[in-house]
Amino acid sequence: MSIPLSIEWSNGQLRILDQQKLPLEIEYVALETLEDVYDAIITLKVRGAPAIGITAAYGLAKVAQHYKTNTIEEFLEQLKKDAIYLGDSRPTAVNLVWALDRLSNTVQQTVTIQEAKNRLLEEAVNIHKEDESSCQNIGEFALSLLGKHTRVMTICNAGSIATAKYGTALAPFHLGSEQGKQFQVYACETRPVFQGSRLTVWELQQSGVDVTLITDSMAAHTIGAKGIEAIIVGADRIVANGDTANKIGTLNLALLAHAFNIPFYVAAPSSTFDLTIQNGKKIRIEERPAEEITHVAGKQVAPPNTKVFNPAFDVTPGKYITAIITEKGIIYPEYNKNIPIILDTEKGAIA
Amino acid sequence: MSIPLSIEWSNGQLRILDQQKLPLEIEYVALETLEDVYDAIITLKVRGAPAIGITAAYGLAKVAQHYKTNTIEEFLEQLKKDAIYLGDSRPTAVNLVWALDRLSNTVQQTVTIQEAKNRLLEEAVNIHKEDESSCQNIGEFALSLLGKHTRVMTICNAGSIATAKYGTALAPFHLGSEQGKQFQVYACETRPVFQGSRLTVWELQQSGVDVTLITDSMAAHTIGAKGIEAIIVGADRIVANGDTANKIGTLNLALLAHAFNIPFYVAAPSSTFDLTIQNGKKIRIEERPAEEITHVAGKQVAPPNTKVFNPAFDVTPGKYITAIITEKGIIYPEYNKNIPIILDTEKGAIA
Repeated sequence: MSIPLSIEWSNGQLRILDQQKLPLEIEYVALETLEDVYDAIITLKVRGAPAIGITAAYGLAKVAQHYKTNTIEEFLEQLKKDAIYLGDSRPTAVNLVWALDRLSNTVQQTVTIQEAKNRLLEEAVNIHKEDESSCQNIGEFALSLLGKHTRVMTICNAGSIATAKYGTALAPFHLGSEQGKQFQVYACETRPVFQGSRLTVWELQQSGVDVTLITDSMAAHTIGAKGIEAIIVGADRIVANGDTANKIGTLNLALLAHAFNIPFYVAAPSSTFDLTIQNGKKIRIEERPAEEITHVAGKQVAPPNTKVFNPAFDVTPGKYITAIITEKGIIYPEYNKNIPIILDTEKGAIA
Repeated sequence: MSIPLSIEWSNGQLRILDQQKLPLEIEYVALETLEDVYDAIITLKVRGAPAIGITAAYGLAKVAQHYKTNTIEEFLEQLKKDAIYLGDSRPTAVNLVWALDRLSNTVQQTVTIQEAKNRLLEEAVNIHKEDESSCQNIGEFALSLLGKHTRVMTICNAGSIATAKYGTALAPFHLGSEQGKQFQVYACETRPVFQGSRLTVWELQQSGVDVTLITDSMAAHTIGAKGIEAIIVGADRIVANGDTANKIGTLNLALLAHAFNIPFYVAAPSSTFDLTIQNGKKIRIEERPAEEITHVAGKQVAPPNTKVFNPAFDVTPGKYITAIITEKGIIYPEYNKNIPIILDTEKGAIA
């Protein structure tokens, strides 16, 4: 039993877990070229904003080791070009451009090419380690918040394989497993893309966590029948008043938690906050292709030309969120006031 | 555009819509022998308690026409044997045994075999017509209750093809279509068995109703984003205090309707009530095989040996039900008091 990792970096080699093949095949693939990295991101072999950022950082640092430029200026020019190329692979993943920018920034003042090459590798490792440390903090805070509660529901995969290690919403379960605290986790399958069945169930099984799969439609009945004590989810974006965009289905769970009077927690790193947006109404909701719903595992389940509404995520109002768990601490309502206070801790304002 | 029917009876021929082949193939199959009828029920070619009851009644009446018995006693003996055989095909469908009993009872006092044969056919037609009439009443009451509301959500398939015609929860949409009232229906796909995608979307399309498919996980977001004005569902069993067992996922919708402050209606014939049970806690919830969730369209989506919780239905407390629509009238809270009053109308106590 061990916590699965999606990114391996050793002896200058970059390998990633091919998440498209989960849960039936566990296959790590080596990424050698810039094109390999681009392809791994665009085909969703690697997914989860933090994991994408880390992969891109290692990929860029790795290929830069082989640049045949004569001057530092030419080196930086090539680096810039490659960063723009990689950044295009998944424009909506905030951490991707953020990680590539960090690499670029770290070498702007370097004098020699060798120094720049070394700095790039160091910074990629820093990004990786910081994310692991951030997830570990989130997990520890979440463990303290969950207290004696062990029957917990989650949706999608805010997991170890979406980050450096541990994940966000799944971090307390992995840490709990390491520390001898046994959770009973109920994973919603997460239609339409089945991240729950395909990824979360697999990931928690690997870690020795007791996990049970349900369909999203079974959430309310399961909360009552199995005595679920808390719900914990990740986040794609959290705005100033605590309104939180996350995988479609999250709002269902938040409203059910409210109806059953159990806590509803959001776990996410401080990089997820966007305090320039005042409330969730201003978050644009991406809609995805009808085929994700009309076809399942390649087989058509609805009539031809079925009209479909397929929003990729929903927005949970802050008032339904009991607490937001970040690597810097636990944020309670009122969010407008308390988010900046916690985010300003240690490293200064994030937004 | 026409309302699809699952059972056709003409010139002594019985044909049923093979619902297992929907929505990609629309195929009616003739049922000639008792074994054909048994097979159609057990393999779910015909589904929905009323449709199963009607099919069994026609099937039994049809085969009885060819009995080669010499005396009425032998005739009744053979009828009893065949009724027991058919009744075993789907023991949980209340209407199955009810319909077979009605046929048996109608011939107990007959003197000649020919008279008995005629009575059986008449009674099968009566059962068929009564169900159609019952569904039409439910639809009219539902139309009046929905009033100016046109954006309505539903789950599963409480539809025409589960009954003689019109269905229960879907009846107002079919009748509305006939009467020039256009609804915008949002159909939840209804995991794990996809009755929403496979059956409800197809059925409403056939009838010219504007229907949009969503996953169950999209219900909350859709209620807000599309301005859903009401939710209407069918029922498997309604007990004395109004607590209602229905397809898994119904409770989710009831709690969301409550959170969004929109009405939540249950539509069901009076035969669905079981007033011998005081409240929903006493309803046993059937659990179904794990493969329904771990495998989709024959393809495995979860790891091997995944632990699954797969309840087939859930129980919505009466307090979350705005009204129950029956063929005898609309029942409002308090249900303990008002259910018997409405059910006693016309035909005397049902329970």
